[in-house]
Parts: sequence; C-alpha cells; structure tokens
Amino acid sequence: MSIRIGIYGYGNLGRGVESAIMQSSDLTLVGIFTRRNPKTVKTVFEGIPVYHADEVESMTDKIDVMVICGGSATDLPEQTPMLAKAFNVIDSFDTHAKIPEHFERVDASAKNGGKVAVISVGWDPGMFSVNRVYADSILANGSTYTFWGKGVSQGHSDAIRRIDGVLDGKQYTIPVESALEAVRSGSAPELTTRQKHLRECFVVAKEGADKARIENEIKTMPNYFADYDTTVHFITAEELKEKHSGIPHGGFVIRSGKTGKELENTHVIEYSLKLDSNPEFTASVLVAYARAAYRLACEGQTGCKTVFDIPPAYLSPKSAEQLRHDYL
Amino acid sequence: MSIRIGIYGYGNLGRGVESAIMQSSDLTLVGIFTRRNPKTVKTVFEGIPVYHADEVESMTDKIDVMVICGGSATDLPEQTPMLAKAFNVIDSFDTHAKIPEHFERVDASAKNGGKVAVISVGWDPGMFSVNRVYADSILANGSTYTFWGKGVSQGHSDAIRRIDGVLDGKQYTIPVESALEAVRSGSAPELTTRQKHLRECFVVAKEGADKARIENEIKTMPNYFADYDTTVHFITAEELKEKHSGIPHGGFVIRSGKTGKELENTHVIEYSLKLDSNPEFTASVLVAYARAAYRLACEGQTGCKTVFDIPPAYLSPKSAEQLRHDYL
Repeated sequence: MSIRIGIYGYGNLGRGVESAIMQSSDLTLVGIFTRRNPKTVKTVFEGIPVYHADEVESMTDKIDVMVICGGSATDLPEQTPMLAKAFNVIDSFDTHAKIPEHFERVDASAKNGGKVAVISVGWDPGMFSVNRVYADSILANGSTYTFWGKGVSQGHSDAIRRIDGVLDGKQYTIPVESALEAVRSGSAPELTTRQKHLRECFVVAKEGADKARIENEIKTMPNYFADYDTTVHFITAEELKEKHSGIPHGGFVIRSGKTGKELENTHVIEYSLKLDSNPEFTASVLVAYARAAYRLACEGQTGCKTVFDIPPAYLSPKSAEQLRHDYL
Repeated sequence: MSIRIGIYGYGNLGRGVESAIMQSSDLTLVGIFTRRNPKTVKTVFEGIPVYHADEVESMTDKIDVMVICGGSATDLPEQTPMLAKAFNVIDSFDTHAKIPEHFERVDASAKNGGKVAVISVGWDPGMFSVNRVYADSILANGSTYTFWGKGVSQGHSDAIRRIDGVLDGKQYTIPVESALEAVRSGSAPELTTRQKHLRECFVVAKEGADKARIENEIKTMPNYFADYDTTVHFITAEELKEKHSGIPHGGFVIRSGKTGKELENTHVIEYSLKLDSNPEFTASVLVAYARAAYRLACEGQTGCKTVFDIPPAYLSPKSAEQLRHDYL
C-alpha cells in the first residue's frame, strides 16, 4: 500500500518534494496546495493535481502525510500548527532560536487532533542535528564543530540585494580550510567566527553605482558580514546567471573526543554533505521523514516529534529484516 | 538516578567500557564478570568489584544493563541469549552473515525474560550501519560505499601469525585514496575489491626463516590477501612493539545520489571515523546504547533491537528539551 502525500506550499522546496515523491515507489503524490491560483501553477511532472490552499480541509481523508514547504519566517509558524490539527505533517522550520516555541505550539495542535507532526526536518536542522547528538553521546569528552558551505546563503544574498545600487547578488559561505584541518587533527581548537568561515559575494551593480560604497556597505554590515573576512566581486548580470544560478550547499559536523583512563586516545567523527541543490536535498530528507511520520501515526502515536525521536529504520522503505540483512 | 551497569567479559573491549562508564556521570559500574579467577584480574580503575561469571545469576536485581564484551566467534552466540533471559543486555556481535540468526535467538530469550537486548553495537556494525540506512533512505537513487582503515585488522594480523616462521605481525587495511576520491566526486564508480583497499603487513620472522616464502604465503593467502595489493615489510620485534602496538582504525561510509526531475543534481553524504583505539571507541558506542537499552526497558519494551530501532535521543544523557534547544 502506498503512502499518500500532499505538498502544501510550492516553491523550490515543494518542487524538490514533488520529484522525490515521484521517484519513491512506496509513496503517492495526491496533490499540491498553493495560495496562488492553481491554474497558474506549472508542476515539474505532468498531471499532478493542484488545489487552492483553501481546499485542504476537504482532503483530510485522502492524505496520510502533508509535507509543508513554506518559509520559516512567517509561513510555518502559522501553517504547521494549523495543519497539524487535521493532518500528519512534516516541516523544515529552521529558525534555531524559535524551535522550542514552535515545538510547543505544534505539539499542542497535533495532540489535539490526534496527529503526528515532525518539525525542523532537513539537513541543518536535521541530519546535522542527528549527527551532533550521536557524536556527543558517544564521545562524552570532546568538542563538536559545525561548518557550513561551500554554498549559497539565501539570507546573505538577500541582504546584498537590499543595498542601494545593487541589481542582483549571490553570497557563498565557505569554511576555512585550515580551521577544518585543525578540527580534524583532534586538537580541539577554539575558533572565532572569523576563523571558521569566509564570505564571498558576487554583485551586479546598477550602471553608475558607487562600487566602493557598495563594497563597504557589504563588508561592514552587522551580523551578516562584519564579523567575517568578506570578498566582493562585481560581475555582469550575464556572468551571475551563467556561473552562479545554482543553489549548492553543504557542510561538516565534526566531533573530536578522548577516551581511555587518562583520556590518552583521540577519536574524530566527521559527517559531511556536498549538495548540488540545497532545496532538493532538504526535500529528500523531508520525504524520508514523511514515511516515518506515517509509521508513527499507524502505531497510534500523536504530538510533535523531531529527528531525535525517530529510529533510523522508520525512514527506510525496507523492512526491519531486510535492513538487518543488508545494512547492519 | 544513576543507571547501574555490569561488564561481562574483560579484555580490551571490557576495559574500554570500564573507562567510558567511569567518565559518564549518569552511569555506575556495578562490577565486572570474568571467567578467570577474579583475584587475578587487575582493573583499569581502582576499587571496581570483580566477580566470577558464575555469580552473575545472583546479581539480577543489582544491574540495569549488562554490557557483554565477549568475542563474536564463540562467546557472544552463547552468552547473549543466555544473559538476555535475566538482564537487559548490549553486545557488539560483528559476524555480519550470522546477524539474522543471532537476532532471532537473542530476541526469543529477551522476550522470554521480559528484557531488552541490543545487538551488533559498535561502529561497523553500528554507527556505519546507521549511516548507511539514513543515507540510503534520503537519497533513493544512488550508490553506497564503505571503506575501512587505515587501521589494524585483528583477523588479518592473526592470519599472518599462523604462518610457519612468523614470530609476530600486524596488518593494516588501507583505503585506496583514488577510489575514495572517485566515490566522493559522485561518479558512482564500480570498484573491485583490489581497487578499494590495500593491505600492508609488518612481520617479525624467526631467525633463519625463509622470508621470500613467508611473503609469498601472505600475498597468496585466499580470502585474506590474494584479492588485494599487499605489501610485506620484515621488521624487528622491537620496531613492531615501538611503532605498531596501537590498535587504531576507522573508515568511511559514502553515498552519492541524484535528485531532480531528470536526476540532474548530485549529492554526496560522507560519514567517517578516525580512531586512535578501535576497542575504546567501540566501548563508547556500547555505553551510549546501554543508556538507550535502559530507557527502552523502563518503557516496558522487550526483545531484541538493533541500532536501526533506537531514536538518537535515547543515547544522550540530556533531556528531549535540552537536545532540541542545544543540538537541533
């Protein structure tokens, strides 16, 4: 029996979820829900039903799990608690500081509706979080480091685009290679923000704009760039489109820790991702956890869960016997 | 309240478990059980009670989880089912082909006794297995590779020592760097056994032994060396002791997979370990899963589990709230 999935919200992430579902034989895509006029939405695959978001209430018995693909700033804080009353849901809420609050609201809704919700699914939060917990639990004496990149930061790219005189821009977050090597050596270095990541910006300026002023505004922007070594390259709109239209990302979670009577032995655990498409990989994680949410719901569980609460076996389409035989 | 742990079997692995427990504030080491004369056993830390294995039956109400530290060849197939009748248990059974059979026997015993058993805990099987399942579940279209090393293979070192004319020997398994790079590139290469790993041997020969014959016997040994590019170095007993007395190990689990409508985007997930002491790291994993076994038992669960069945949060001494706040 196929698990019936709905997609709520249809941007890059929703399109990635669509592809991931179409390529999973145990999942069926029931439909896409959008706040736009459904007739104007062109899906990646042909023949996928598109509904207006308002129609969602009539579909509660047709969907086993709803994958919510809205943004963390304003969409998910409202959508996930609302939908968790009537559907098993997954979201990728990634505002780290607000996760406890989001969890509480979604948990109350899901328990109220007798549904399962899994929040903050993706790679960070998500697979990186899982790896931080495994590594810290195994190596009790140690230090954990997370590096991001090389990849495009949407938030930093947006910040560049808001500067007067900028037509378009892309920002890459890049881990500092020497910092990575120091961490991998097991020396447990103390690293400042500046020592961990570089920021590289590709900017298309308006004709006649003051490039020196733009560069200075970027490099001194608080929170976004001021604490980093930042390089700014001015390029043409054509070059930006040709060389920087992808949305790659990735990163590293590394823990080094010590064991033995005198803590004389050092161990290094490293998890890394190299992603051609940030939203498509995030979508693939969401879809695997949608499978898990369905299984939890079938067991009669309710309420909000995170990646920490879900056994690895629940993500796989394979049976427990198969997993033990093929993967253990 | 502290979780009360026992250690059954006391070699390198048992000593590693002892240290890991002594360094975990939520765990108490109740005692060590050995088949030797307890009076002859010197523990790593002072004051640890040592009991004869026969005394274990009288300790059922004093131990929450027994960590079984025997070998996979003959100890664990007998000890784990026997002890699972009366204790929650963890073992590191690592004979891959016999895991399904071991699982069934341990499951029957544990269910019978109303206990929880977790088998095949360590890094492979163990953390590598978990990472294979996560990666395969997320990237449905792809290829997974496991590389081992650089590290000492006990089985291959033993095989060298059985050769006539050999006094002592150590064998290192080494991943082929170019194979690692090919896999990391996402090109999903087909790799033969010989293309994935090298074997490097350090051998102490008896005086007057025919080194050419020993080298040939090693390099042509079926299953162990014949399918690999193997190098043999003859060294003195002193040099072996000085430079090769450690038991480092490690390895890599890498999956590359494709997403998108036309599978046009490639992603690479890599998990790696670099371990100074193979038994101490394995011990650290066992101890984290002992914590999980205790929690499962407190929930009233019974029967045999593997790393696939256990949520990451169960390994951590921290609460669910703390984990969400600090790690998500």
